[in-house]
Amino acid sequence: MEQRILGLDPGLAILGFGAILCQPSLGRDVAGNVGVMDFGIIQTSAGTAMGDRLCTIYDDLNSVLDAVKPDLVAIEKLFFYRMGNTIAVAQARGVVMLVLAQHQLPFVEFTPAQVKQALTGYGAADKHAVQEAVARELALTTIPKPDDAADALALALAAWFQQ
Amino acid sequence: MEQRILGLDPGLAILGFGAILCQPSLGRDVAGNVGVMDFGIIQTSAGTAMGDRLCTIYDDLNSVLDAVKPDLVAIEKLFFYRMGNTIAVAQARGVVMLVLAQHQLPFVEFTPAQVKQALTGYGAADKHAVQEAVARELALTTIPKPDDAADALALALAAWFQQ
Repeated sequence: MEQRILGLDPGLAILGFGAILCQPSLGRDVAGNVGVMDFGIIQTSAGTAMGDRLCTIYDDLNSVLDAVKPDLVAIEKLFFYRMGNTIAVAQARGVVMLVLAQHQLPFVEFTPAQVKQALTGYGAADKHAVQEAVARELALTTIPKPDDAADALALALAAWFQQ
Repeated sequence: MEQRILGLDPGLAILGFGAILCQPSLGRDVAGNVGVMDFGIIQTSAGTAMGDRLCTIYDDLNSVLDAVKPDLVAIEKLFFYRMGNTIAVAQARGVVMLVLAQHQLPFVEFTPAQVKQALTGYGAADKHAVQEAVARELALTTIPKPDDAADALALALAAWFQQ
């Protein structure tokens, strides 16, 4: 049976999403066992009030879920970078977690190192190596853009490999 | 014209709310110019999944807004305490900001020191002095319980005094 996995890279200004369609009955190394469904970003403007930005994330993420109808969601674990930014990202992530729960969607979490390990076999791989692995695994002739969408596809692939 | 002000003290485990009804046409020192509408807490259990806790906050806060129909919301500004806790509180606060924006409600933010200053004239007042001021201003014979609800009423009063 097909499985739809949605990767989400949460942020306030840019939230990346990437959906893949998997055929678990085929082995990992069989060509055509996984393909891209959709990928892109949800963007909100720094000039807009926080509440309105969170509304955009809520509405647009609902639209993505309605279109993709994922069976599983893979989401990046929240870490600390700069403090001010962490609060903003955590607020956006709260809205993402809310929407997933409202849709009663199961999800798995990965750290960036776990995604790198899953995609390249090396937990400290550079961004480009991960993006090339995403393109290769999904049989894409170019690397998906922007970076946040490629990161989201990498998350979805990490969840697929884990199964 | 009457004004309904809702104070919110956001948290993940306990979110305090307190609503007051004000008569701006009367002066600040006129008895009966402000009274309590409602106060209480929204509680979520630490044993429950984060997404489900955020759903409870979303649903229960919507119910409070439907009941109170505030003209203005006063909310506590987010500060850093312990880091793990800050992420959880920020995620809950993101849901609160979302709900306020979905209802297109104007809001004002106060730091704890600003609330203390507004209620007691002293920005480093202790908790009990603030709670006594809340009871006095609202002509209550006892201090509102629990503390989070009293804090929310203090936020609402700070917004009322500011006007």
